[in-house]
Amino acid sequence: MMILMSRNATEEEIQAVVDRIGENGLHALPLPGGQRVAIGIPSAIPPELRPLLDETLSVMNGVDQVVHITRPYKLASRDFHPQETVIQIGGVQIGGGICAVMAGPCAVESYDQLKASAAAVKEAGATVLRAGAYKPRTSPYSFQGLQKQGLEILQAVGKEVGILTITEVIDPHDVELVAQYADVLQIGARSMQNFPLLIAAGRSGKPMLLKRAPSATIDEWLAAAEYLLAHGSDQVMLCERGVVPVDRTYARNTLDLNAVPILKYHTHLPVIVDPSHGIGHARYVPAMALAGVAAGADGLLIEVHPNPEKAMSDGAQSLNPEAFKELMSKIAKLKSALNG
Amino acid sequence: MMILMSRNATEEEIQAVVDRIGENGLHALPLPGGQRVAIGIPSAIPPELRPLLDETLSVMNGVDQVVHITRPYKLASRDFHPQETVIQIGGVQIGGGICAVMAGPCAVESYDQLKASAAAVKEAGATVLRAGAYKPRTSPYSFQGLQKQGLEILQAVGKEVGILTITEVIDPHDVELVAQYADVLQIGARSMQNFPLLIAAGRSGKPMLLKRAPSATIDEWLAAAEYLLAHGSDQVMLCERGVVPVDRTYARNTLDLNAVPILKYHTHLPVIVDPSHGIGHARYVPAMALAGVAAGADGLLIEVHPNPEKAMSDGAQSLNPEAFKELMSKIAKLKSALNG
Amino acid sequence: MMILMSRNATEEEIQAVVDRIGENGLHALPLPGGQRVAIGIPSAIPPELRPLLDETLSVMNGVDQVVHITRPYKLASRDFHPQETVIQIGGVQIGGGICAVMAGPCAVESYDQLKASAAAVKEAGATVLRAGAYKPRTSPYSFQGLQKQGLEILQAVGKEVGILTITEVIDPHDVELVAQYADVLQIGARSMQNFPLLIAAGRSGKPMLLKRAPSATIDEWLAAAEYLLAHGSDQVMLCERGVVPVDRTYARNTLDLNAVPILKYHTHLPVIVDPSHGIGHARYVPAMALAGVAAGADGLLIEVHPNPEKAMSDGAQSLNPEAFKELMSKIAKLKSALNG
Amino acid sequence: MMILMSRNATEEEIQAVVDRIGENGLHALPLPGGQRVAIGIPSAIPPELRPLLDETLSVMNGVDQVVHITRPYKLASRDFHPQETVIQIGGVQIGGGICAVMAGPCAVESYDQLKASAAAVKEAGATVLRAGAYKPRTSPYSFQGLQKQGLEILQAVGKEVGILTITEVIDPHDVELVAQYADVLQIGARSMQNFPLLIAAGRSGKPMLLKRAPSATIDEWLAAAEYLLAHGSDQVMLCERGVVPVDRTYARNTLDLNAVPILKYHTHLPVIVDPSHGIGHARYVPAMALAGVAAGADGLLIEVHPNPEKAMSDGAQSLNPEAFKELMSKIAKLKSALNG
Repeated sequence: MMILMSRNATEEEIQAVVDRIGENGLHALPLPGGQRVAIGIPSAIPPELRPLLDETLSVMNGVDQVVHITRPYKLASRDFHPQETVIQIGGVQIGGGICAVMAGPCAVESYDQLKASAAAVKEAGATVLRAGAYKPRTSPYSFQGLQKQGLEILQAVGKEVGILTITEVIDPHDVELVAQYADVLQIGARSMQNFPLLIAAGRSGKPMLLKRAPSATIDEWLAAAEYLLAHGSDQVMLCERGVVPVDRTYARNTLDLNAVPILKYHTHLPVIVDPSHGIGHARYVPAMALAGVAAGADGLLIEVHPNPEKAMSDGAQSLNPEAFKELMSKIAKLKSALNG
Repeated sequence: MMILMSRNATEEEIQAVVDRIGENGLHALPLPGGQRVAIGIPSAIPPELRPLLDETLSVMNGVDQVVHITRPYKLASRDFHPQETVIQIGGVQIGGGICAVMAGPCAVESYDQLKASAAAVKEAGATVLRAGAYKPRTSPYSFQGLQKQGLEILQAVGKEVGILTITEVIDPHDVELVAQYADVLQIGARSMQNFPLLIAAGRSGKPMLLKRAPSATIDEWLAAAEYLLAHGSDQVMLCERGVVPVDRTYARNTLDLNAVPILKYHTHLPVIVDPSHGIGHARYVPAMALAGVAAGADGLLIEVHPNPEKAMSDGAQSLNPEAFKELMSKIAKLKSALNG
Repeated sequence: MMILMSRNATEEEIQAVVDRIGENGLHALPLPGGQRVAIGIPSAIPPELRPLLDETLSVMNGVDQVVHITRPYKLASRDFHPQETVIQIGGVQIGGGICAVMAGPCAVESYDQLKASAAAVKEAGATVLRAGAYKPRTSPYSFQGLQKQGLEILQAVGKEVGILTITEVIDPHDVELVAQYADVLQIGARSMQNFPLLIAAGRSGKPMLLKRAPSATIDEWLAAAEYLLAHGSDQVMLCERGVVPVDRTYARNTLDLNAVPILKYHTHLPVIVDPSHGIGHARYVPAMALAGVAAGADGLLIEVHPNPEKAMSDGAQSLNPEAFKELMSKIAKLKSALNG
Repeated sequence: MMILMSRNATEEEIQAVVDRIGENGLHALPLPGGQRVAIGIPSAIPPELRPLLDETLSVMNGVDQVVHITRPYKLASRDFHPQETVIQIGGVQIGGGICAVMAGPCAVESYDQLKASAAAVKEAGATVLRAGAYKPRTSPYSFQGLQKQGLEILQAVGKEVGILTITEVIDPHDVELVAQYADVLQIGARSMQNFPLLIAAGRSGKPMLLKRAPSATIDEWLAAAEYLLAHGSDQVMLCERGVVPVDRTYARNTLDLNAVPILKYHTHLPVIVDPSHGIGHARYVPAMALAGVAAGADGLLIEVHPNPEKAMSDGAQSLNPEAFKELMSKIAKLKSALNG
C-alpha cells in the first residue's frame, strides 16, 4: 500500500499518517518527492487489515489517494497456493489440462425433457448435467423454476443416466437442501455478491461454481471466491459469463475471455466459460465455446435443450442436441491440437 | 412486439411465426417490406406472456430479431398508475415535490456513535436516519456489521431522537426481523436481483428503498421494483447510486443522474439519489447531492459520520456533521429556488 | 511510480530494474515486503519520461505491475497552476464563478434559421452562439453540414446579433479557416484523441472547447487538453457530454456529472456541461442542465432550434426557444441560490 | 422502422406522423394496440433517408420512441453482398477461410529494428508487416513516430524482405503520401469516426483495415466502414482491438470476441483480431490470439519486437520473435484442427 499525500500536505499531516499506520503494527516509509510526499508500507498487509486501513487513511487530512499494491484475496491467490487446483468428483476431473463440459437445459421443465437432455449431452461427451430448479428471472412474470420438484427430477435423472449434476442455488436457506440433490452448486451472476449465500455455500463443503457478476472487477470476483474458501470450500470453480456490453443490439453481454488467461495466472482455481449467456444466441455459441477453450478455459457451461423452440427459458441461446454433438467433436479436435 | 424475419425467410417460416403467436391468443400482422418481412403484434402483450413469447419466437427458423415495444413492467409504470406515488410514514412524506433527506453512518458501530449521528442529522433537517446493521462487504475480512445488536441500537436511537429509520436487509430470512426494528427496508445494489429477497421484502408490506445494481438497465431495475409491487408492497422508492464507470481512478462509480428525469417520466415511484456511493469521496459529495436535487430527485441518501476518520466502513465518503449541515442549508436554498 | 515485482523475482531482476531507473537519471528505492519487493521512485517523474519508463519497466523480467502515482499531465494540473483559469473573450467571461451558456442549433442550416436561433438565445441570456458548419455524422448518408458557407453565415449572424460564436472543427487543415470565422473552436467527442487536430488547434491560439470522448478516462481527457496547452493554447475549456452507457434504451449516453467536481479539484480549466448530447431527449435536457450547474459547472452547451421538428440534425434533443427561455430563468434562480 | 406513440397520443398526433412519413414517399401503417398505437413502416427505408426520418419523427408530439429495424449500413451488409469478401494483394489472400497474420513492431524505430522484425515475422509465417510511422499517443510527451522517414524505412524493408506492409494514417492529408509507401492503410481505434480521414482513405482505393473505437457499437463500426465503401474502397477489413473494460486493473481493454461471429453473420467484410491491444500484456497475448482464431477471425494483428524491453512504444504487449514463432506454430495446428 502506498499513500500519496496532496501537494499541500503539512509535516503534521504526514506524521499523522505515519503514526496511524504504526498503530496498526505496520512500518511506514515516507518517500519525499519533487512536489509531494508518498508514504509506502513495504510489508505485506494482511487482507483482514486492508479494508479498514484503506478507509481510515484515505479520509485523513492531506491524503490524496491510497494506492493498493497487494490484492484483496489470499486463499484464492497463486501466491499462497502456487499449484493449480484440480477438482475430483466421483471419478470426474475438472482442471489439470482437460476441458470439462457441463451441459443441459436452462431449467428442469419435466422428467422427460431432462432425461432426453441428459442422455444427449452424456452421449456427446459432457461429464456434468446442468439444469436449474430455482431460476432467477428478471421479470416476476417469468417461469421461476420447478424448485424442490425440479431437484428431485435432477437427482433421479443424474443417477439413471450416470452423469454428475450442477444446479443453481439462490437462497442461503436452500443450500442444505440443494446440496442433498446436486453434485455441484452454482452461484449465479446476480448472486456473486450475495454474501449470506456465499457463506452458507462455503460451509456446505460442496464443489462450487461461482459466476462473475456483469459489473465485477477481477478483484471483486476473487474476493467473492475468497468468501467461499474462507468458509470451508476448497473446490471452487470460476465461471465467466459476460460483462456489461457497450452495445446490447446483437448480444446481451460481452463474453470477457481476457479473464481466462488473467485468472489462470493470478489464481489456482479452475476457470469455466459460459458461452451461452456470454453471447446469448445459439447461432454464435459454438464459435465462442471454441474461443473459450483456445483461451485456456478448464471447462465450458453450455445450454442444450432437446427442443429449444419449446424451452421455458433461454431457448434463444440453447443448442439442440445435433449442434451440441458437432460442437463437442470440434472441441475434441481443438483440445488435441492445442495439447499436441 | 415486432418480429423481424431474416432476408431469406421462407413463406412457411413466416406462417409458423404467425401461427405460434396465434396459439398464444394474440393477433399477428405480417408487414411485407423491401428485403424482408416484419411481423407486428399490434395488441398489448401481457407482461406475464412477454418473456416466454420472446424466447420461443426468437429461436424459430427464419427469425432474425425480436424487437420489444412494450416495457417489462406494469405496476411500476406511469401507464398503469399515472399519478405520482407519495409515501407517508408516521408524518414524514417522501415524494410529492419535497426533497426528503435520509442520512447517517454507513454502519451502526455503537450506541454512542449512532446517537451522535442521529442527533446531528436530525438537527440539520434530515427526516430519516440511515445506518447498516447487516453490511454486505466485498472482502470476507471486512467488518460485517453488528447485525441483531445493530438493529436494537438503531430502533432505540430512532425512538429517543425521534427520527424514522432505514436499514439494509440482505437475507430473505431476516426480512421479518428487520421489519420489526426499522421503518424502511433497504435493498442494496448487490441485492437488486436477489429475487427471494425481493419476494420476502414485498410481502412484508414495509416501505422499501430499492437501489440500482451497477450494471442494471432501467428496465431491469423497474422489473426488480415490479417484484416488490407484485408481492404486496406499494411504497417503493428507487435509489440511484452509481453505475459501472469507464474509469475507476477518481471515483468507484458513475452516478447516473440521467436516470432521475427518465424515471420521473416512466414510473410513478419516488426517486432517491445516493451521492455518497455515487462518487465515493466526501470532498465531492455535496456537489453531487445538489446535482441530484436539481435533476429532480425526491430525496437523498447521504452518509454522515460524527468522526469519518474513525469509521469502520465507508469513512472516505462520509460527511462530518458540519459539512452535512452546510449542505442541508444549500439544499434548502436550491429547492426553494427551483420551486419558486 | 512504484514497480511491484512478482513473488518469484530474483535479486538480479530487482537490481536490473533499479539500474534501469538509474540510467534515466532517477533514484530507485527497493522496499522489501513480506512476499514480494516493491521499488519506489520517490522523486517526481517528468511527464515526458513517464510513458517510456512505464513501458520499458513493465516488460522487464520479474516485474508484475507498474503503479502510477503522478498524473500524465502537467500544464492542465492544479499542481502547476493552482488558480482557476478565467477566459475572457471580447467582454464575455467563462469561469470565475459565473455560468456561461452557449446555445444554438446543432447545425447551421440557413441564414434565416441561424438568425432566428441567435436572436432567441441572446435574448434569453446566452453569451455564445453554437452551430456546426462541419458535422461529424455516424452515417455517410446523413447531412454533413454547410461547411465554408456555414462558417460565413455563422460569422455574419454573430456580428449582426452581437454574440460570440463557437463551432466545431474536425480536420486539422481546416483549423486556420475556421479560426478566421469563429470566436471559439470546438473539438468534438469523436476527435478528442485526433492528435494532428489537437496540435493544429493548439497552435491557432484560439479559445478552445474540448469535449470528452465517450470512453475516455479523466486522465486521457486531461492528456488531450495537455496537447492543446503544450502547443500554445492557454484558453481551454473541458466539456462533459456523456460516456458509454450501461443502457441505451432511454438515453444514448450517460452524462457523467461526477466529472465536474473531480475536474474542478484536479485542473484549473473551466468545465462545461452539454446536457443535450448527455441525455439526448429535449424532454430531459432542462433537468440535466440544472444538475450540471448545481454540480459546479462553469457553463453549459445547449442545443436550441427555432423549430426542432424541422431540424436537419439532432432535432430530438434540441429545445425550442420557449423551453430554453424558461430554462435560462431557472438557471439564473439556481445560480443565485447557490451563490447566495 | 416502427414509431411507438405515447399512451395519450391524440388522433391528430397519430395522423400527423402518418402524414410526415407519407411526405417522404413511404407508406405508414398504424397498428392500434391495447394501450397505445404503433405506426409501422413496412417498406425498407433507404439508409440516406433514415437519419433524417429518425430525428424528425422522434420529436413530434405524441411520439414516445422510434424503433429501428433496418441497420444503418447497406454496402457493408450481407443483405446486399451475400458472399464473403476475399482480399487479394500481390499474391497474399485475406479472408476466404485462411488466417492471415500481420505482425511487427508498434513503431518503426530504425532500419535495423524493422529489418530484424520483418525477417523474424516472415520466417514465422506472417504475410504482412505492421509498423507505425505516425503514432497517435495519449500523452503529448510520448514518442510520436518517425513519420515520413518511417514510411521510407517501412517500404524499403518490405521490399527487401519480400513482405506486404500495413501502417496507420491519422491525418486525412497524409493519406496520399502513406498510400505511396504502404500496401494496406490502417485506421486506428481513435480515428474510427474521423470522418474526413475515412473519406480520404476511401477515395485512395487502397486496401484498408478499420479498427473499432473502444466505445463503438457494431452498428457505429459498420457505419464507419460504410464511409470507406461509399467513397470508393472495396477492400475493407474490420479489426476488433478491445472495448471499454469494466476493470482496468489487469488489462486496459476488453477484447470483444463476441464481435467476431456477429460480424461474420451480418457483414461480408473480413474480420481481424488484435490481441496485443485487446489484452495489453505479452504474457496473455498468445491465449487471446488463439481464441480469436477459434472464434472465426480471418486474421490477426500482433505486435512483435526484436527486443521488447527496448521498444519505444507498446513494449509491454509485444511478443519477442521466439514467442511469436511458437504462437504461429500453435495457430497452424489450431486452424488445421478447425478445418479438418
